[in-house]
Amino acid sequence: MKIAVVGLGIIGGSYCKAIKKYTDHYVIGINRSPLPLEKALKCGAIDKIGSADDLSDIDIVILGVYPGAAVDFIRKNGDKIKKGAIVTDTSGIKTEICDDLTALSKEFGFTFVGVHPMAGKEKNGFDVSDGDLYKNASCIIVPCGADDESVKKVADFNLSIGFGGIKITTPEEHDRMIAFTSQLPHVLACAYVLSPNCMNHKGFSAGSYRDVSRVANINAELWSELFMENKAPLLKELETLIKNIRDIEDAISKDDKEKLMSLLQKGHEIKEALGE
Amino acid sequence: MKIAVVGLGIIGGSYCKAIKKYTDHYVIGINRSPLPLEKALKCGAIDKIGSADDLSDIDIVILGVYPGAAVDFIRKNGDKIKKGAIVTDTSGIKTEICDDLTALSKEFGFTFVGVHPMAGKEKNGFDVSDGDLYKNASCIIVPCGADDESVKKVADFNLSIGFGGIKITTPEEHDRMIAFTSQLPHVLACAYVLSPNCMNHKGFSAGSYRDVSRVANINAELWSELFMENKAPLLKELETLIKNIRDIEDAISKDDKEKLMSLLQKGHEIKEALGE
Repeated sequence: MKIAVVGLGIIGGSYCKAIKKYTDHYVIGINRSPLPLEKALKCGAIDKIGSADDLSDIDIVILGVYPGAAVDFIRKNGDKIKKGAIVTDTSGIKTEICDDLTALSKEFGFTFVGVHPMAGKEKNGFDVSDGDLYKNASCIIVPCGADDESVKKVADFNLSIGFGGIKITTPEEHDRMIAFTSQLPHVLACAYVLSPNCMNHKGFSAGSYRDVSRVANINAELWSELFMENKAPLLKELETLIKNIRDIEDAISKDDKEKLMSLLQKGHEIKEALGE
Repeated sequence: MKIAVVGLGIIGGSYCKAIKKYTDHYVIGINRSPLPLEKALKCGAIDKIGSADDLSDIDIVILGVYPGAAVDFIRKNGDKIKKGAIVTDTSGIKTEICDDLTALSKEFGFTFVGVHPMAGKEKNGFDVSDGDLYKNASCIIVPCGADDESVKKVADFNLSIGFGGIKITTPEEHDRMIAFTSQLPHVLACAYVLSPNCMNHKGFSAGSYRDVSRVANINAELWSELFMENKAPLLKELETLIKNIRDIEDAISKDDKEKLMSLLQKGHEIKEALGE
């Protein structure tokens, strides 16, 4: 196949590298600024530096840019995409972008299949991209009305570049679950490091600090966009979390050891039940 | 030296294994139940299964039991400890236990030096103890009025079994910092996994979920004791955290992207400044 990757940050760059590492597909890279493209060409992560004009020849277009930019790119260049080609995104939210891209797919005659690769790092950019970023990770596919054959093609393609499993879901379930599994930990990490004690943690800290604070080194622009486009599910998770923290706080405050132990024990039991 | 380790859970057991792995000291193990002692003797983590009656011959006594149990053990057996011996604890809180053990050290004629090894796992018990648990970890020492020579002896001993550095502090600073670096992440992890979405996370999750939820597999009894004995500093950290979460929540709720970005950017800058 001929594949175009639009946006060569960590996500798009890792797609390029994984495709070249694990398959024989031909890859063109499209990016606003030239530097990542030159690096990608030099290290063999792409076969060619491309532009929107190359899309007439491409079987799968992978959008590795921010959600808003992904929609803008297709709105502007959708007419250049080959009829019947598949377009997938890599966005961390789905309800809004899936509506927009499904509408555009009908207008321009391609098939849109939503994809969210469940992998990342606390750094961004092509320099930290990695051909094994997706190794054993979960690939969430949001069909959004795409035909079964196209969904299977996207699933097989993602498995072929290293993903460990496919999870097929709706935009609504995706956004509700991601609010919990990904967005909430990012809010928490930022809120956590804002404590006045954070700058003095060295010597007093170990794995607990490291793990909860890891993703605080956040891309503020990207995550602001993701949080705001997933407002309702995220606010719901935040309310649940604050209530659960308040329950523990209340038990400590009232010296209610029995209540405190039962709340902590629930946490223990959930992790045990999950086998983690 | 002759060293006694009291309590062969993950912390005490790891002390035994590290001492035998990295030094030539003689180690006796003291534990309520016989099974961990038998395992420790069999795998060479201790030289002898001991009892309180052996303490008359011991140079360093390491208390690897819960804070309350550590004080009880010394109250009951302090008269058997050799005059001039050093007693260290391994407790995760210091203000209360240091007062108690310093008072007992004067009564019985030993020297107490508070120690908090900054290492652990999300599992407990001798079976998960590890001779390299302390490798490169920070060893917090709380002198509590002990003479410099004893403090140096405790520091040198801990460095000799693998610790990467020593942090000397007061009980109050220790408890304030630990409320942030260790207790808060444990509260958070438990509060987090209590979300109704947690049991369905598989396929939707990656590193963010894994890291923030890791320590939810908590020892409810131990941590209830630690939280309640560090009530004031922990409640203060919880208030700070909830305020910081509320600020982010408020910006999302009001679609205030500028405010949201500036809060997330602060998190980013703190981690950058720390070089993490």
